[in-house]
Amino acid sequence: MVLKNLCSVKPEIRVLGVDDGKFVPHTNTQVLVVGIVFRGGYWLDGLLRTTISVDGIDATDKIASMITSSSHCKQLQVIMLNGITFAGFNVVDIKMLNKATGIPVVTVTREKPDLARIHDALENLPAGELRWRIINEAGAPSELETRDAGAKIYVQTAGIHKDDAQRIIRFTSTRSSIPEPLRVAHIIASGIGTLAQ
Amino acid sequence: MVLKNLCSVKPEIRVLGVDDGKFVPHTNTQVLVVGIVFRGGYWLDGLLRTTISVDGIDATDKIASMITSSSHCKQLQVIMLNGITFAGFNVVDIKMLNKATGIPVVTVTREKPDLARIHDALENLPAGELRWRIINEAGAPSELETRDAGAKIYVQTAGIHKDDAQRIIRFTSTRSSIPEPLRVAHIIASGIGTLAQ
Repeated sequence: MVLKNLCSVKPEIRVLGVDDGKFVPHTNTQVLVVGIVFRGGYWLDGLLRTTISVDGIDATDKIASMITSSSHCKQLQVIMLNGITFAGFNVVDIKMLNKATGIPVVTVTREKPDLARIHDALENLPAGELRWRIINEAGAPSELETRDAGAKIYVQTAGIHKDDAQRIIRFTSTRSSIPEPLRVAHIIASGIGTLAQ
Repeated sequence: MVLKNLCSVKPEIRVLGVDDGKFVPHTNTQVLVVGIVFRGGYWLDGLLRTTISVDGIDATDKIASMITSSSHCKQLQVIMLNGITFAGFNVVDIKMLNKATGIPVVTVTREKPDLARIHDALENLPAGELRWRIINEAGAPSELETRDAGAKIYVQTAGIHKDDAQRIIRFTSTRSSIPEPLRVAHIIASGIGTLAQ
């Protein structure tokens, strides 16, 4: 694991927020995934995009390629994912994403992931055991405080110390209790919606 | 014309920035148009989307419908367009857009529009005279200052006094000499690119 000690977390740190668009479950369609490049918690500097399959196993590779092929890649200091599953149960292997990009990865969710429910759902999918192993290897979700002491979020991390993740989340949560790169990635990905016309 | 006197231009004013995505000229394809809702010059609050035809004549209707069908509509106080033509020469009738939505409209360009060149290009298109009349009726582009005294932009307006447009442009140009809703709409629309997979 590439473990970075971000001793100098600067306000203009470049953070990528990644989220997926809308899709119809259990179909064989492609789902839009966007990455929004933020400079600190204020300025949107770029948009990356890719597509992944509903319930597929291509999220890690596709998101890694989206990032490494981008002109923003060298400046990115943290990748934030809206959870660890995209487009249904297309699971992101955060350790592999960290290794492939050399950039720390933090998953963020408002609710504590219900691992028992996820485990049950995976039993009905191809490669269910592989998906479950990837989720488990990401580690147990940790509770972190965001900008308000009362607001909790849950994170899994790869390549970054928890206390660095905490600091980055705090000062990128400029508008709400969700880091701005993720709040905006959600608005953009869900707003663009399906790719079909 | 619905001419609003925005005597109380507040920092949290909701502004929609509209821009189009990439497209291949002279094809019969649909082009993505996005509207980015900003609260003042800092916070992205929403995304609207529609599609229009390359060199078509549906931009005014499609953009008006995109706005009036949105939950953001009632809060929007200004529509900013990245120029008056979208998807090639799909011209927006800004007076009609103002009338259809009840919201003031401001087109913004960095360069002074070259009307002679546009006129020549329109001669080769169906409904060239109609397009030319719409452009002319939007009025001569006015030069305005943005946040830096040295940086000029050019605007055409419908339903808003020039000095109100000037004030709104100044305090929404928080990151560059282009109002933030338009800077971000450009990044999103061009980043999403073509709709085809």
